Amino acid sequence: MGKDKVHIFDTTLRDGEQVPGCKLDTKQKLIIAERLDELGVDIIEAGFPISSPGDFKSVNEIAKLVKNATVCGLTRSVKKDIEVAAEAIREANRPRIHTGIGTSDSHITHKFKSNREDILERAVAAVKYAKSFVEDVEFYAEDAGRTDNDYLARVCEAVIAAGATVLNIPDTTGYCLPEEYGAKMKYLKENVKGIDRAILSCHCHNDLGLATANSISGVINGARQIECTINGIGERAGNTSLEEVVMIMRQHPDLNLDTNINSKLLYDTSLMVSDKMGMVVQPNKAIVGSNAFAHSSGIHQDGVIKNRETYEIMDPHDVGVNESSIVLTARSGRAALAYRAKKVGYELTKTQLDTVYENFLKFADVKKEIVDSDIHEIVETSNVNSSSLA
Amino acid sequence: MGKDKVHIFDTTLRDGEQVPGCKLDTKQKLIIAERLDELGVDIIEAGFPISSPGDFKSVNEIAKLVKNATVCGLTRSVKKDIEVAAEAIREANRPRIHTGIGTSDSHITHKFKSNREDILERAVAAVKYAKSFVEDVEFYAEDAGRTDNDYLARVCEAVIAAGATVLNIPDTTGYCLPEEYGAKMKYLKENVKGIDRAILSCHCHNDLGLATANSISGVINGARQIECTINGIGERAGNTSLEEVVMIMRQHPDLNLDTNINSKLLYDTSLMVSDKMGMVVQPNKAIVGSNAFAHSSGIHQDGVIKNRETYEIMDPHDVGVNESSIVLTARSGRAALAYRAKKVGYELTKTQLDTVYENFLKFADVKKEIVDSDIHEIVETSNVNSSSLA
Repeated sequence: MGKDKVHIFDTTLRDGEQVPGCKLDTKQKLIIAERLDELGVDIIEAGFPISSPGDFKSVNEIAKLVKNATVCGLTRSVKKDIEVAAEAIREANRPRIHTGIGTSDSHITHKFKSNREDILERAVAAVKYAKSFVEDVEFYAEDAGRTDNDYLARVCEAVIAAGATVLNIPDTTGYCLPEEYGAKMKYLKENVKGIDRAILSCHCHNDLGLATANSISGVINGARQIECTINGIGERAGNTSLEEVVMIMRQHPDLNLDTNINSKLLYDTSLMVSDKMGMVVQPNKAIVGSNAFAHSSGIHQDGVIKNRETYEIMDPHDVGVNESSIVLTARSGRAALAYRAKKVGYELTKTQLDTVYENFLKFADVKKEIVDSDIHEIVETSNVNSSSLA
Repeated sequence: MGKDKVHIFDTTLRDGEQVPGCKLDTKQKLIIAERLDELGVDIIEAGFPISSPGDFKSVNEIAKLVKNATVCGLTRSVKKDIEVAAEAIREANRPRIHTGIGTSDSHITHKFKSNREDILERAVAAVKYAKSFVEDVEFYAEDAGRTDNDYLARVCEAVIAAGATVLNIPDTTGYCLPEEYGAKMKYLKENVKGIDRAILSCHCHNDLGLATANSISGVINGARQIECTINGIGERAGNTSLEEVVMIMRQHPDLNLDTNINSKLLYDTSLMVSDKMGMVVQPNKAIVGSNAFAHSSGIHQDGVIKNRETYEIMDPHDVGVNESSIVLTARSGRAALAYRAKKVGYELTKTQLDTVYENFLKFADVKKEIVDSDIHEIVETSNVNSSSLA
């Protein structure tokens, strides 16, 4: 009956905020946090409180402001980090500490100059310590994407026993293929004792352009939380795009998964975050790019004019975009020209349209994009019998 | 032994060029075509010759210019289209005509107001007619993503018999999930008589952010051509990004698939196409975004300084990026600060670093991004014993 709920963990203000070029002060972060709450995200990762006094302040203010969402602070598996995070989120309605440690051999050897048993102990100690401050403790196994599944399962089992409520399995380097990432989730679901007491979470990076596909593969295979950001911003090539995973689940009812997100706010939230962060969204960005619902080729325009679903799998209104646009270029056909000419007041017969269309192509080859005022000029200079024009 | 070759079919100048906001004249298209040839793409789709006199001219000039790659012109399953395309590419060293028709019930009913048998006949007739001009004929089954597999297999079988050398299976609306798209390829590979005489091709759109994952799922399941564009530009949310699929195959040797692409030209080609088309690439674009190899969080910077592979799965040089950048922000740690301070001439002891770091955080919370000249100011105002500084 009811669909399984996938929790949306937004990390725009933490993994997103830390990118080069991003400029957000506490006031702007509060505006974004309020909007994320309104959008319906389940968890807001507000920052990494130990990292700087400014970030501590932001997390603290967000914790006080947000009404519905859980407010989460990031830490390493370090006592001081956890104490500072606990203090920062103390006044949240629903506080969560997100602690963890690298579990891949690469991280254990090079970053920590340690060994698997020591890392396992540090993970358990961190979760227990975090648990002394809050009930809701998420554990991340950094570089889980490159962590041996058997060891990863042991770590998961141990931290669940220590009280972790959520297990974050990050593909930190963005290397996994969807099948591989999904298989990892499935392995954990099947091999970790006590896994039903915790939620598995996807945290994917987009270095190879696969963050969205990996996250979807993760939830198909048993994860029930996705960590993501508005516009997919984040470290390097960014994180999973919130808007993409939300709309994939919404548009694929057979997956039997859904989120709490009010999708009609997606476009506006994308604009707001892009503007406040000073991070541009490319026109061909899925869901929220300025061209995402624009049709310019003649073949496509003709199809959309006859029946929207010929080329559109989503109603633009569902993501807060007012309407699909029919943009006239030299690649547009007669149907699109007739459609737009009619909109500005010209009802053309087939013969008239043929003549106007030839003239239109000459204009369009030079001017590229034809706007309404051009249409008047094109029709007037086409020498078609103007008496039959409206 | 040798890896299986996946052909790269670049449609930057056709599916990419038709987007709103893109401005390319013939001269610019020639420069891009020459670069694509140098990059090592196997096929350049140069345009849709019937669409306008300007596009005809561009395709024609590209056909004369390009040395190695096949030059391809798009057509509908319409005689006149095919004649005009054949004329446009007549002088190419390796000419290809790309013809096709919509095969989903949605397209057959709404766009063509026709039926399956009639569409099948039109498809065969178009391929036969194209074949009378050139040896290399690619057939597209538009909206194959939503086409019933059994009917799609019948169409493929019939057009192979009519002489098609490549079968393009487009997910025109960008709706498919990777598993579903891969399963479609597998079905065709297993059920189409004569399939070994043709190459299956992936043509995916990015409406849900899955174009790259779908294309990779396609080649894993038997396709040997990917249709893609530089920077993923194209109709609506764009096409599969060339740079993403190429680097996924390169970085995942277990797939046993590779392309002819000289990856060291990827970054420069991305910049060139973005600049000439006037289409911005977002900083968090995979592979070619300005932040794709930038590390700003302290945890990540520390890891990268100790060992590049902790957080990087690709050597930036392999895609033509000079080096990974360590960007200093309030999220940076002591290791990154020490690394950059050393680069500008300060060798700090641990105690000095602690003091300078506190001062650095105050600067960084306000200024966001710290550049080399700021480091001098930060160290000088930190009241550490300057005599021990280099």
